[in-house]
Amino acid sequence: MSTFKPQVANFEARVRKSFDRQPMMHTIGASLARIEPGEVEMGMPIAVQFCQQHGFVHAGIVTTLADTACGYAAFSLMPASAGVLTTEFKVNLLAPAAGERLIAVGRVVKPGRTLTVTQGEVHAESEGKRKLVAIITATLMAVEGRDDVKD
Amino acid sequence: MSTFKPQVANFEARVRKSFDRQPMMHTIGASLARIEPGEVEMGMPIAVQFCQQHGFVHAGIVTTLADTACGYAAFSLMPASAGVLTTEFKVNLLAPAAGERLIAVGRVVKPGRTLTVTQGEVHAESEGKRKLVAIITATLMAVEGRDDVKD
Amino acid sequence: MSTFKPQVANFEARVRKSFDRQPMMHTIGASLARIEPGEVEMGMPIAVQFCQQHGFVHAGIVTTLADTACGYAAFSLMPASAGVLTTEFKVNLLAPAAGERLIAVGRVVKPGRTLTVTQGEVHAESEGKRKLVAIITATLMAVEGRDDVKD
Amino acid sequence: MSTFKPQVANFEARVRKSFDRQPMMHTIGASLARIEPGEVEMGMPIAVQFCQQHGFVHAGIVTTLADTACGYAAFSLMPASAGVLTTEFKVNLLAPAAGERLIAVGRVVKPGRTLTVTQGEVHAESEGKRKLVAIITATLMAVEGRDDVKD
Repeated sequence: MSTFKPQVANFEARVRKSFDRQPMMHTIGASLARIEPGEVEMGMPIAVQFCQQHGFVHAGIVTTLADTACGYAAFSLMPASAGVLTTEFKVNLLAPAAGERLIAVGRVVKPGRTLTVTQGEVHAESEGKRKLVAIITATLMAVEGRDDVKD
Repeated sequence: MSTFKPQVANFEARVRKSFDRQPMMHTIGASLARIEPGEVEMGMPIAVQFCQQHGFVHAGIVTTLADTACGYAAFSLMPASAGVLTTEFKVNLLAPAAGERLIAVGRVVKPGRTLTVTQGEVHAESEGKRKLVAIITATLMAVEGRDDVKD
Repeated sequence: MSTFKPQVANFEARVRKSFDRQPMMHTIGASLARIEPGEVEMGMPIAVQFCQQHGFVHAGIVTTLADTACGYAAFSLMPASAGVLTTEFKVNLLAPAAGERLIAVGRVVKPGRTLTVTQGEVHAESEGKRKLVAIITATLMAVEGRDDVKD
Repeated sequence: MSTFKPQVANFEARVRKSFDRQPMMHTIGASLARIEPGEVEMGMPIAVQFCQQHGFVHAGIVTTLADTACGYAAFSLMPASAGVLTTEFKVNLLAPAAGERLIAVGRVVKPGRTLTVTQGEVHAESEGKRKLVAIITATLMAVEGRDDVKD
């Protein structure tokens, strides 16, 4: 569906490698479902330890998934020399995040040399049905020449 | 410093009780440091399992702490009959979140019968120094008459 | 394209009537192009008096158009008894707004009894080509029982 | 109150000169009230032509003032070679903007070589009293080497 052209041929391997290096992704049991140029889909099982007082997934975990999907959507279009950092995002929580699984999609709206703007959404899957639980708009920065931000 | 008047006398106990019921707070090792009417301070130790690929705390965890501090700041001013839900927030990440500890403060800017608007910030503590790593603006909703959203 | 069902049969007339009562819409020369349940398109000519120091349309005017499109998209789904107020929005400016005309579309993402969440975008039209210049996410509130907020 | 050190000695004159070149500022009758390193205050009279259907100042005009104050707060700390562009903002509307006058203050939260993050608020003045009507968080970009973005 994506119409963006990646700057590196192995963009998919590059995203997977960076993802695997994130302890946080292992902690929440997240996995990559689909990596296209400028679009990434991820999922995670809903587990009680990430829930808030009403039994819904904490907004911070919904955001973790949404931000990561957007970050890798942006990263998939960046040059080999760049690392990616989130500079800001805005999340609207539309419905309680409950069920068996969360699925997040992030898409590049406008790629840029320095800043890439993305949007995405998170669905909760429950008994085979998907419900939209959150939307995100995130800005990602391509960071060059910093040893501590390489991917 | 706060000039808001709480609607329930035991607002502090109410916040603590709700906080203790959040599995997510236990998972990240968060603790409440200060609860005033309309202002809440929280902290958590920085641990590798909540970090991203560069070794900084994941933006989603920084957001978890910031959103929770804002949520309880709002909740501290709500009537006994209300539960609290986040409807939206916007986070700007200002510096990598690294060091020993994160500290978040949330403050009510404008309380309301239905919507309460809050702002807050997150600092990272490293070798005794604090650095501002994120700011948040969050809107919280007072939810009445829903059995699944009571605190 | 819209799949939302309006609560009032004359939703289109209702939007037009409210729009006509806005002095600001006359000031910027805005006009309604399309009103569907949950989706509204508007336009305005680009004029120098609404530009900033570089000759681009001021971000506040781009926002005026985007917010109004989102507001009426939300309003088109509200009951006859409700007035509409914007509670918050987030705008990303993606390219300088220059050319002959701005076109904004607002769409309801999630309608609600109290809060309706919308998204939209603004394009600049120049020599027959459209360029995406901004995206918006806006939350609108249905206001009931207030004499000063009836539409 | 500001503790930022400007990079150019004539930061105030530079802000005034840029402000004067904005047709939009003349259109709304805005004026600069105070320019400090990293902090700018502006005002404008409330006039019916900038109001929406309920007689309140349109959210887009409230945003115009808030964004401009934040933009010049950021610009006051930028080097002589840089122009300033807003990349994104988030505005919460806290109360109807009505009365005689709007006053906006923008403050730098975190200056940066590329991105500067600011926050601000807008008050409405009515019969000698000020009421908080909106808060903003805005990101500004320092643009170098572009002939069309020099201030």
